[in-house]
Amino acid sequence: MRDIEFICGFTQNPEGSVLVRFGKTIVLCTVKAEEGVPNFVEDDAGWLTAEYSMLPGSTYVRKKRRTAAGELDGRTVEISRLIGRSLRSCVDLRKLGRMTLYIDCDVLQADGGTRTAAISGASLALRLAVDKLLNNGFLVDDPYTGLVGAVSVGRVDGRMVCDLSYEQDVRAEIDFNVIMNQQGEFIEIQGTGEKGTFSEDELMRMIDAARKGIEQIFQKQEDSLEAYRRSYTQSW
Amino acid sequence: MRDIEFICGFTQNPEGSVLVRFGKTIVLCTVKAEEGVPNFVEDDAGWLTAEYSMLPGSTYVRKKRRTAAGELDGRTVEISRLIGRSLRSCVDLRKLGRMTLYIDCDVLQADGGTRTAAISGASLALRLAVDKLLNNGFLVDDPYTGLVGAVSVGRVDGRMVCDLSYEQDVRAEIDFNVIMNQQGEFIEIQGTGEKGTFSEDELMRMIDAARKGIEQIFQKQEDSLEAYRRSYTQSW
Amino acid sequence: MRDIEFICGFTQNPEGSVLVRFGKTIVLCTVKAEEGVPNFVEDDAGWLTAEYSMLPGSTYVRKKRRTAAGELDGRTVEISRLIGRSLRSCVDLRKLGRMTLYIDCDVLQADGGTRTAAISGASLALRLAVDKLLNNGFLVDDPYTGLVGAVSVGRVDGRMVCDLSYEQDVRAEIDFNVIMNQQGEFIEIQGTGEKGTFSEDELMRMIDAARKGIEQIFQKQEDSLEAYRRSYTQSW
Amino acid sequence: MRDIEFICGFTQNPEGSVLVRFGKTIVLCTVKAEEGVPNFVEDDAGWLTAEYSMLPGSTYVRKKRRTAAGELDGRTVEISRLIGRSLRSCVDLRKLGRMTLYIDCDVLQADGGTRTAAISGASLALRLAVDKLLNNGFLVDDPYTGLVGAVSVGRVDGRMVCDLSYEQDVRAEIDFNVIMNQQGEFIEIQGTGEKGTFSEDELMRMIDAARKGIEQIFQKQEDSLEAYRRSYTQSW
Amino acid sequence: MRDIEFICGFTQNPEGSVLVRFGKTIVLCTVKAEEGVPNFVEDDAGWLTAEYSMLPGSTYVRKKRRTAAGELDGRTVEISRLIGRSLRSCVDLRKLGRMTLYIDCDVLQADGGTRTAAISGASLALRLAVDKLLNNGFLVDDPYTGLVGAVSVGRVDGRMVCDLSYEQDVRAEIDFNVIMNQQGEFIEIQGTGEKGTFSEDELMRMIDAARKGIEQIFQKQEDSLEAYRRSYTQSW
Amino acid sequence: MRDIEFICGFTQNPEGSVLVRFGKTIVLCTVKAEEGVPNFVEDDAGWLTAEYSMLPGSTYVRKKRRTAAGELDGRTVEISRLIGRSLRSCVDLRKLGRMTLYIDCDVLQADGGTRTAAISGASLALRLAVDKLLNNGFLVDDPYTGLVGAVSVGRVDGRMVCDLSYEQDVRAEIDFNVIMNQQGEFIEIQGTGEKGTFSEDELMRMIDAARKGIEQIFQKQEDSLEAYRRSYTQSW
Repeated sequence: MRDIEFICGFTQNPEGSVLVRFGKTIVLCTVKAEEGVPNFVEDDAGWLTAEYSMLPGSTYVRKKRRTAAGELDGRTVEISRLIGRSLRSCVDLRKLGRMTLYIDCDVLQADGGTRTAAISGASLALRLAVDKLLNNGFLVDDPYTGLVGAVSVGRVDGRMVCDLSYEQDVRAEIDFNVIMNQQGEFIEIQGTGEKGTFSEDELMRMIDAARKGIEQIFQKQEDSLEAYRRSYTQSW
Repeated sequence: MRDIEFICGFTQNPEGSVLVRFGKTIVLCTVKAEEGVPNFVEDDAGWLTAEYSMLPGSTYVRKKRRTAAGELDGRTVEISRLIGRSLRSCVDLRKLGRMTLYIDCDVLQADGGTRTAAISGASLALRLAVDKLLNNGFLVDDPYTGLVGAVSVGRVDGRMVCDLSYEQDVRAEIDFNVIMNQQGEFIEIQGTGEKGTFSEDELMRMIDAARKGIEQIFQKQEDSLEAYRRSYTQSW
Repeated sequence: MRDIEFICGFTQNPEGSVLVRFGKTIVLCTVKAEEGVPNFVEDDAGWLTAEYSMLPGSTYVRKKRRTAAGELDGRTVEISRLIGRSLRSCVDLRKLGRMTLYIDCDVLQADGGTRTAAISGASLALRLAVDKLLNNGFLVDDPYTGLVGAVSVGRVDGRMVCDLSYEQDVRAEIDFNVIMNQQGEFIEIQGTGEKGTFSEDELMRMIDAARKGIEQIFQKQEDSLEAYRRSYTQSW
Repeated sequence: MRDIEFICGFTQNPEGSVLVRFGKTIVLCTVKAEEGVPNFVEDDAGWLTAEYSMLPGSTYVRKKRRTAAGELDGRTVEISRLIGRSLRSCVDLRKLGRMTLYIDCDVLQADGGTRTAAISGASLALRLAVDKLLNNGFLVDDPYTGLVGAVSVGRVDGRMVCDLSYEQDVRAEIDFNVIMNQQGEFIEIQGTGEKGTFSEDELMRMIDAARKGIEQIFQKQEDSLEAYRRSYTQSW
Repeated sequence: MRDIEFICGFTQNPEGSVLVRFGKTIVLCTVKAEEGVPNFVEDDAGWLTAEYSMLPGSTYVRKKRRTAAGELDGRTVEISRLIGRSLRSCVDLRKLGRMTLYIDCDVLQADGGTRTAAISGASLALRLAVDKLLNNGFLVDDPYTGLVGAVSVGRVDGRMVCDLSYEQDVRAEIDFNVIMNQQGEFIEIQGTGEKGTFSEDELMRMIDAARKGIEQIFQKQEDSLEAYRRSYTQSW
Repeated sequence: MRDIEFICGFTQNPEGSVLVRFGKTIVLCTVKAEEGVPNFVEDDAGWLTAEYSMLPGSTYVRKKRRTAAGELDGRTVEISRLIGRSLRSCVDLRKLGRMTLYIDCDVLQADGGTRTAAISGASLALRLAVDKLLNNGFLVDDPYTGLVGAVSVGRVDGRMVCDLSYEQDVRAEIDFNVIMNQQGEFIEIQGTGEKGTFSEDELMRMIDAARKGIEQIFQKQEDSLEAYRRSYTQSW
């Protein structure tokens, strides 16, 4: 596992804001609440949706901004949807009223594991946002059901690695993203063996490695949250 | 498992064409070969890419066509990428020369499991396409590495179900898509518990159910292929 | 004239569904009804609109799907509008209530005459859709005013040909599309002589040839409809 | 027929520029030549293409400009393609070298018949452009094969009308656009009876009316061309 | 200063229409009123917005029309916003009721200074539109607060030039656009020294030159307005 | 003036990276170099271009990301162009070889003055990028011609204010952005009086206020640069 850090309250305009770092990967996760829900949402519930994006300067080769004309980037869509699904498992949508929570995860520096860093940071930013909305009276019942942690695991040169850097990710034969809650249950598992298949035994071993990594993430999230609540000092 | 059927050679213009039916779900899978590869492909290899789409009349409520202005549909992007990854595991790209294979999966009628029907049908259409390209001399070495089968499994009302219909899919608490090769190894596993988490034990049981379902799919694919090769009669 | 075939009830989700074949040209025509009308529609009337599209695998060289960025294909727009105008002449819009009928014509295999096959098939699918809507009580008065038939005629190597294949269409000096109702009146005539002009006499002879071809189409439509009503068996 | 006027050389930057007026309908038609041809053009030929557009202030209710996001306007596409086909019949593309001629028809004021005014004006602007390109040595052989004239005819309240104003066009039961060359042959006929069908006899009578109207247009085009060649004075 | 001309009432469908010419630069400025205002407008006020565009044939090298896919042209956006801001300074938005005025400035021929010609012409067209809306009773209080004039000034080969042609603009080291009202106050100043910086003294001298040029424009606007009001004859 | 801070080397992937803060406004400015130049660039020169964007969570009300379908935001385009013009005045493009420098300014938190903070930060990031490119041998001659500073000034409630916060900006009657180099010369002046005009005297006083503010910015830039060069320690 690389060195992991969470900074609560990095910016002040959003309801919740966390800067998360997994090694050299840095992601700004913000949560904003807006009145109203999309049409497809059930009658008595709120909604939560997520958008993921990489700043042009976040990667070693500059990543082009999406233009009016640009083909939608499939990877971006896929990760945004994954973050949304995972974070919806952190809240009871029926306790949100007719409110939509927007999760924005913007990658400032990319070095592998941006989606798992984003989910882990956003889960914490969501806790901050819910706290503020409860304090301001916009929420009455706490809809938050617990932290979520996410980590990548992969087989690199035949060895199991947890929290892969970009350089490891490129070489990985198998690549898993595992998302769990604090009860030790799975929220999502995505495993792909495009450069090599995997057996049931390998699946089990990767899931065990992920479980151990996620426990460390939960510890870091809780330490940061406690420090933030004690001081309420922001980085600026 | 619902009733499953594969019709080889449904149309004649593509290199390979299979109409696949899983219950009431009907997908037309075609494979076309074109010269040239995208920029990112390695020097001595070919490429394979896939596009998935639903006809407007395929669903119970008419599905809007994508307009020039339309937000790209995240689900469509996600499924197209999944089909592409799965089918690339069926071929040795270095034996394709500088050729790109386009897999098109167009859903004529949708009743759940369109992505797993599409992968299973496209894997067979790819076999037909490779046969034609070998016969015509466009390919010299057979790049095909074996059939791929895909099936959905889910927990519906607490019970494990294999190959979910639309009505079951909507009610499923957990939803898995499992993709395997004929050697019994995994190519991709995607499991999501948006409406409920799952334990390691449940993961194991769902994977076992998927394995049994996929074995039936392999049998149907091979029966259809054999019948087609015997007769070379098309549906028209 | 090439061999012509209509299969009523090819899929089940739409209100009406017809698979039509003119030679090797295969088009799936579906009709869906939705509540509500566009803004420009008069106060007491419904609306009917059409969309035409070719599947990527329908042509010999793969036809690219329209992308978010893609220039709208002028030919597709033109044909969609032609189908819409022609089919609106089959219904009394004031008897539709505030309902919109969506006609979708998706070409599964293209070999010339896709627009005339689409109009002829859609006219029949519209009959099926109206029957279902009358049975379900969504319509009270039958708005259908009769079948419409369409055929192409052209001068190829100086000779008049009816229902041109793709190979003939490319060589045609003059190209007409003629659309008629069962009373023998014209709904639309489009004649273009981009590769050669035409005289009034030639115009007359092409219209006569078209009239004879359309009579055969009416016969096929009615035979198929009668068989379908007798059995109500679908292709699956 | 309404009052018709052609002003040759209205602007100076294009190779050819004509301001045409049919009653209150005013269209600026310009022709620009550029090196190079699209990919689909045959090896030894040039190309001609056309774009039609209405200024936002040209109509009684302001016509929105096309936005980046805007659905392509089917009517605009259809008319642009019609102008292109008609004007290509005025030139021998093999005498253009590898040059593309761009026809732009921008409607300054709209009162019905904008497409027929545009074709008639553009045909004259093309003559001016070819003259300039011959003078400058960019063309050697004159590729121009003669003027083209276009007019609308329709049945309004049961009466035949030639060159319909907007108010007449809205009420017309049948609507024809006829495009002819100076030899009296047809280049394109488009007749639509969306609000009422038509018989073969009516077709004949409309074509005769169109023929007479187009003869007047040819006379006006030639008078304007002669006056312009005599004086070479522009409106500014 | 180049020769300047304003033609009031050039077209009839808009509320106000002015054709303006600065040397060889020709711009058609039209004003249309529509009911309703955008969401961001204050409760008791109307709105005014502007769009600027160049016809494809207006420039020496043909200017491509914006396509569905086309990257938005930054220069066009910038000029449209500048025209909107400048013209909003001509009206008291609170006297407009809940009405939006659309200013359209379409360049028929471009030879430098299109934005300053557009602002000067649109200011006059707005006067005509307000007159018509007062006459028709759509406005009760006159919201017009006075004419606005705009001119470019620049340092070309070390010399100060007012109202630059295209050829001068390309060579200019510094380029200013100055917009003033009839009270001699500034509405907007934009000065850029991309090819060379400028001192405070040069700033002063450019502003003085602009002031003198704008006085001439006011004179021409008023002469044209007076002539138009006397005769109410249009160019057609 | 609000409190101002520059952090050099905030991220590591770009050639230059500066986090700049003007009060609560925080902008990440990065500079990346790429081989090649756009078509319009002269034969022996390089190019510099800029893109400005606001993160969705940067504002008090969430700012929507640009979608494939979204109308291009005029303000974003205008600011991107302004940053590009200003930064091009910092470099001698002929000393860049055939290289393009991409300036990306992403607003993490917005509280007025984002464009002037962006220009001031980007000018410093460009210095860092040029240093790295000289060290790596990608540049031989130093093309950098000196720092650029930018500040806003405005008349708020009749008083002159330098470096306006969002709350002041909304109330400002006049709003200037002034961009200068270290020689005290102007690079760009943009002044707009949408809510009130201004006299020549006011123009002078605003320019003087801007000059004093920019001198403080130059001091902060140089302090930060010196500290960074001494330590080469980054924030992470």
